[in-house]
Amino acid sequence: MAKYQRILDAAISVFAEQGFFQSTIAQIAKEAGVADGTIYLYFKNKDDILVQFYQYKTRQIFERFREAVSKPATAEEKLRCLIRVHLQEFQKDRNMAIVYQAETHQNRTLGTELIKEMSKMYRDIISEVVELGQEEGTIRRDLYMGLVKRFINGAVDEVINSWIHSGGKYDLVTMADPLVDLFIKGIGVNRQ
Amino acid sequence: MAKYQRILDAAISVFAEQGFFQSTIAQIAKEAGVADGTIYLYFKNKDDILVQFYQYKTRQIFERFREAVSKPATAEEKLRCLIRVHLQEFQKDRNMAIVYQAETHQNRTLGTELIKEMSKMYRDIISEVVELGQEEGTIRRDLYMGLVKRFINGAVDEVINSWIHSGGKYDLVTMADPLVDLFIKGIGVNRQ
Repeated sequence: MAKYQRILDAAISVFAEQGFFQSTIAQIAKEAGVADGTIYLYFKNKDDILVQFYQYKTRQIFERFREAVSKPATAEEKLRCLIRVHLQEFQKDRNMAIVYQAETHQNRTLGTELIKEMSKMYRDIISEVVELGQEEGTIRRDLYMGLVKRFINGAVDEVINSWIHSGGKYDLVTMADPLVDLFIKGIGVNRQ
Repeated sequence: MAKYQRILDAAISVFAEQGFFQSTIAQIAKEAGVADGTIYLYFKNKDDILVQFYQYKTRQIFERFREAVSKPATAEEKLRCLIRVHLQEFQKDRNMAIVYQAETHQNRTLGTELIKEMSKMYRDIISEVVELGQEEGTIRRDLYMGLVKRFINGAVDEVINSWIHSGGKYDLVTMADPLVDLFIKGIGVNRQ
């Protein structure tokens, strides 16, 4: 399994560096320090590496997301913890962040079902938190949930994207609290 | 110029259908109804088509964005008008929307400077509107502008993305007002 993991990490590093389509099995093998043939012991082809990466990595991340929302008591604290963990995980693994962000915006069939499933899981967590806040009386009831999920998901994604494009130069996690404040209070002056 | 435009439209349609990397000049020529060689009268190569598309299309769109914020008097109305025009333009040209969304999330050098420039232009418009609102007293002063721009830009992008992934089945523009309400009021209950 150590070799499987090494190939997966090497592949994500190569994909992040030069994009999925321009990457070759030979480059991945070189990066992993294995023979080309070794890769085919674990993976059918390049596509399969990407699909297995999604399966492995995102399952791991989603367990952390679930954990993040299970501990705090209030909706606002749950949302804060979710966004913080989200930014933390992407900051911890910049290659994964690059590949994930690039691939989720591609319009092609490879891994599409997996990506849809994961996006749905993330949005389900947001729904649960928002609904809890509505029960608590801390979150507005006049919301269109489909839009709220996109509003939160999109803003977090864009904050991660900007961080990637900046070369990962600043501490991404410091954005969590100001971002959650924007989600909750908006940019408008609270008129009494 | 009619042929130039026809090739550009055909290329975007092919890129949207199967992705930039998998598209060939031969497919673009076929879609445009011209000989392969004709394409090289107007474009150096496939990369050049994408770059010229960005130059042509985004200049056009940014003029409309500028116009959208120049007419209304208040910051909130300007923001509403900007988001509405943004969704309108992407709804009007779904192929453009697909290519634009896929390419802006790629981590590669092709057209990167152009994309950065355009994103910056968009964010500058948002800054101006938000600063106007701060002067008016309608938008909070305790905001980190860099984050506000990503917050708005990201949410709009994600709403467009969801629309693309749904197959463009619903009226994207109806999302404009509820989205602006989220930007301004947030999801939290306004505590008196």
